[in-house]
Amino acid sequence: MDEHRLTVKGRATRERILAAAAELILRQGVAGTQLDDVRRAAGVSGSQLTHYFHDKQTLIDDVIAWQAHTTLKREPALDTFDAWRRWADQVVARQTARKFQGGCDFGSLAGQLAETSPETRAHLADGYDRWLSQFRHSLDRMRDQGLLRADADPDSLAHMLLAAMQGGVLLSQTLRRPEPLRDSLDAALAQLESFAG
Amino acid sequence: MDEHRLTVKGRATRERILAAAAELILRQGVAGTQLDDVRRAAGVSGSQLTHYFHDKQTLIDDVIAWQAHTTLKREPALDTFDAWRRWADQVVARQTARKFQGGCDFGSLAGQLAETSPETRAHLADGYDRWLSQFRHSLDRMRDQGLLRADADPDSLAHMLLAAMQGGVLLSQTLRRPEPLRDSLDAALAQLESFAG
Repeated sequence: MDEHRLTVKGRATRERILAAAAELILRQGVAGTQLDDVRRAAGVSGSQLTHYFHDKQTLIDDVIAWQAHTTLKREPALDTFDAWRRWADQVVARQTARKFQGGCDFGSLAGQLAETSPETRAHLADGYDRWLSQFRHSLDRMRDQGLLRADADPDSLAHMLLAAMQGGVLLSQTLRRPEPLRDSLDAALAQLESFAG
Repeated sequence: MDEHRLTVKGRATRERILAAAAELILRQGVAGTQLDDVRRAAGVSGSQLTHYFHDKQTLIDDVIAWQAHTTLKREPALDTFDAWRRWADQVVARQTARKFQGGCDFGSLAGQLAETSPETRAHLADGYDRWLSQFRHSLDRMRDQGLLRADADPDSLAHMLLAAMQGGVLLSQTLRRPEPLRDSLDAALAQLESFAG
């Protein structure tokens, strides 16, 4: 289904189904989420659901793209050290508010689905690549403005920052406590600041 | 089933089933692994499988404990900077050799199963806690021996090192390339070395 060909109302319904599915998957995992739960949570009929999403696999692939888009749209401009510190605080606050349940909105999908099929993995890889590229552009700007030294490598720093966040969230999700995430992000920020110009 | 009450032969069979299940889960995920696949891969009958593992949930909880044990047993003594560098090289070599498929033997189970049930999450948390505690003891020794400064916090460094590894492996698993893991571990080592005494 090409979402651009939908009417305004159709797009709103599709969006409602995706948001409901994403929320259920975050709370109970992909395997624990059935199409019928999604249908009920979104308040649509079975035939409506099938109209927008052919089957569970289609729905899941579209949830991946939707979560990547939603997660990236939420990211602020990260082109100062202060902005990165606020980002880390927000990541910790967000996970703490939900009592560390569900993990990262996007990363938890990667953890659950990376080996399900080559197509699904490609969707997940696309999301991470766009996320890394957004980080890299911010770090490029910081280097251009002299906030980071010329020998800082935006590519490698982007890997380090995203990995620290993804690993920290996974540990905090499993252990249901903030320290692993907080310590991991603080170390990543210290590492970033060690390249201050 | 209390594994200590099994005969030598019984323990070997149980171990064979666990190893087969762990290998299948790593390649095709928990949801993609059926009891019948495990039975065939381990070369046991259906009634043998049921004898050792009541149902899929029991098997999965035991695979979690088995992977935690196997992963921790493999970890070398990490009480010098050289040992940590070798550890990072081995993590990268291990993931590269399997073409980044499956992710971390233990962490991939956390990513897939953290929200399935409170009991399963507790098994996963226990594995991470033991892993963190092993890291912490190594870092404690390094501090006692003056390799790390007195203000180094082994607890926080353990969080940082394990999170860097878990996040780096998840990114490299999804993206099927070594750079995120390599960069993440290099940054973690640099952070650790910044506390050199």
